[in-house]
Amino acid sequence: MTKEVSRRIDNINKHKIVVGVSNRHVHLSQEDLESLFGKGYKLTEKSTLKQPGQFASEECVIVRGPKGEFKNVRILGPVRKKSQVEISLSDSFKLGVKAPIKESGKLEGTPGIELIGPCGSVKLEVGTIIALRHIHMRPEDADFMHVRDGEFVDVEFFGERKAIMGNVLVRVSDKYQLEMHLDTDEANAVGIKTNDYAVIRKFAR
Amino acid sequence: MTKEVSRRIDNINKHKIVVGVSNRHVHLSQEDLESLFGKGYKLTEKSTLKQPGQFASEECVIVRGPKGEFKNVRILGPVRKKSQVEISLSDSFKLGVKAPIKESGKLEGTPGIELIGPCGSVKLEVGTIIALRHIHMRPEDADFMHVRDGEFVDVEFFGERKAIMGNVLVRVSDKYQLEMHLDTDEANAVGIKTNDYAVIRKFAR
Repeated sequence: MTKEVSRRIDNINKHKIVVGVSNRHVHLSQEDLESLFGKGYKLTEKSTLKQPGQFASEECVIVRGPKGEFKNVRILGPVRKKSQVEISLSDSFKLGVKAPIKESGKLEGTPGIELIGPCGSVKLEVGTIIALRHIHMRPEDADFMHVRDGEFVDVEFFGERKAIMGNVLVRVSDKYQLEMHLDTDEANAVGIKTNDYAVIRKFAR
Repeated sequence: MTKEVSRRIDNINKHKIVVGVSNRHVHLSQEDLESLFGKGYKLTEKSTLKQPGQFASEECVIVRGPKGEFKNVRILGPVRKKSQVEISLSDSFKLGVKAPIKESGKLEGTPGIELIGPCGSVKLEVGTIIALRHIHMRPEDADFMHVRDGEFVDVEFFGERKAIMGNVLVRVSDKYQLEMHLDTDEANAVGIKTNDYAVIRKFAR
């Protein structure tokens, strides 16, 4: 029995995935950035994120929906081809926007929203999503864990609010670092903070 | 294969548990109710809840913590022996109150909080909790599902955000109706609304 428990702990330790909790945030195109902050504007890096090259910027915007708004919503850099607003399901009720659960960048058919900056506002036609929970990993992590890019896995969380989440998307690239992304609803429901860890279900058995 | 799927669906249907999602709310003692609303005050029933005798009242209060406050927090009736404030983990961050996850009524060692009503305010010494997720059931439900009062079970949710939650408390009484209670973090994380259903894990296999 003790041997079995120690085997399981060992297995979990070898397969730990660090969690990053995403509060609501905005990605902007250069064009939308300039509409909000002025001609030729460049984002100022405030802190680096775990995914290489990504950063939280000093700049924030107001996100306004038909039923409510959030002030001080952080912009993440660098700029992208298309603007995108990532909110939680709780946020979607407060804003009054029926955002679907979508993979980042898959914006077709998603609702628009209004962004307000110090120099102007932008009405996005599309781009409001609830980010599909996912794991970023490098090809060598995927090999080690026997999973493939695009695969959906079950992920286990430990502690007082222990839980298993299904439908977690695996995304593999040599540009990534191993990290699971959850939104605030999901993190709070399972009592998890940034830098806690999770394990793909099969390694917790 | 088809037969196996239909057996599982049948099993799930027989063991469905309706879910009730609890937004932040307050239970009050008669003494605290009078401090907030005036001498001899009685709560006005707005709508009945699924648990027999329980109701949402017309009355709301402000709940104020060191970091923030919520206006229009609903009082649930009838009055109880001790006042109790039930919030989500998200709410606890906004209020700046380190509320523990506790069973209703188990208030020893829990943090206090300030309540503000139209006629005065009350500083509760204890009573702020994040409600431990739980299932109310009648003795005949418990028999049918082979569980006992006080037992912890795993509960499965279906759909886009499918998940299994561990550490769900079973509470059995002939004063209850069959219903699972989740807070808003938990409900949104698994994409569940009031009157959706869940199933104790062993019946979903």
